[in-house]
Amino acid sequence: MKIPKAVTNLIESFEKLPGIGPRTSQRLTYYLLHVPQSELEVFGDALIDLKKKTLLCSVCRNVSESDPCSFCVDSTRDANSILVVEQPLDVLAIERTNRYKGLYHVLHGAINPLDNVGPDELYIDSLVKRLTDGSKVEELIVATNPTMEGEATAMYLTKKIKSQNSKIKITRLGMGIPRGADLEYADDVTLTQAIEGRKEI
Amino acid sequence: MKIPKAVTNLIESFEKLPGIGPRTSQRLTYYLLHVPQSELEVFGDALIDLKKKTLLCSVCRNVSESDPCSFCVDSTRDANSILVVEQPLDVLAIERTNRYKGLYHVLHGAINPLDNVGPDELYIDSLVKRLTDGSKVEELIVATNPTMEGEATAMYLTKKIKSQNSKIKITRLGMGIPRGADLEYADDVTLTQAIEGRKEI
Repeated sequence: MKIPKAVTNLIESFEKLPGIGPRTSQRLTYYLLHVPQSELEVFGDALIDLKKKTLLCSVCRNVSESDPCSFCVDSTRDANSILVVEQPLDVLAIERTNRYKGLYHVLHGAINPLDNVGPDELYIDSLVKRLTDGSKVEELIVATNPTMEGEATAMYLTKKIKSQNSKIKITRLGMGIPRGADLEYADDVTLTQAIEGRKEI
Repeated sequence: MKIPKAVTNLIESFEKLPGIGPRTSQRLTYYLLHVPQSELEVFGDALIDLKKKTLLCSVCRNVSESDPCSFCVDSTRDANSILVVEQPLDVLAIERTNRYKGLYHVLHGAINPLDNVGPDELYIDSLVKRLTDGSKVEELIVATNPTMEGEATAMYLTKKIKSQNSKIKITRLGMGIPRGADLEYADDVTLTQAIEGRKEI
């Protein structure tokens, strides 16, 4: 097939994105042929600048423009609690709830032996450090995903931190049936957790 | 929310793509934070070069690297027939079948009064010209989409071309039930066309 190189190049770049297959890549590329050059430049520059103009905060390891990040330097936030997540996107999800005003810590992954991700590949050491050096953190909320990997990470963290600082309160996000779900289709583990986590009304 | 500008810029660019919503844009952007800078540059350059390094063939109006395009200059292709499509992507779809060896003509749209797209907005004049000036084209295959707009375009083309060149054979792609479909769910128009287009076995 006689497709111009400039077109196949872009199709190939789109195909590398997660969840974007060959057909979608073609469709997006041919769509962009109708878009003004100025808009393509904006898009292209945004890609090239993405990592150049961001860094990881040396305290919480969240993606940021400055170091320390705007969460870590914000004195209006409650420095007594740290919420631990796997990914920077999880910070956004928590922020959307508008119910948490403490600090964050981003691990950038979860322990996953099958993918060769051990504790050393995650930002766990820097978390432990935040909890020792005369820290005023009273509660650590472990908000890793409720998956095998997230649970393993939560267990590892709890053990490690408790062994060094037995006074700190470590909590895990509440589990149960999500709003809008159908009891009939809830899996056993979720239902068990919902029963155990029941609340008086 | 405290998202770095470089991150929101890229999220906004992704959101402008068809079929990509805010959540997917976020997911893609945060995924790209884990990708090497060199790959981001390749992607960014591909976007910026997309239109710089392509043009529309002055004969068939397909997206191309050269003018005339590689289809139009290819002497092994059958210059006696032209297949008319709405979009450059449709050329790829036809090429994948490996059953058509003639030339193409890309209209870049279909007549759509609701979107203010009339015959003058499409590359119809250049098609008419290809069929007049001592042309050796014997068959014109109208392969616009089987939608209201595509059908209107096909009818307009047929009328216009017949009025200038009554000898040319104008055909439309066969219609009927697609392979793998379920008769039960086929719509009436498709079934009617399938019955009218029945073949002896």
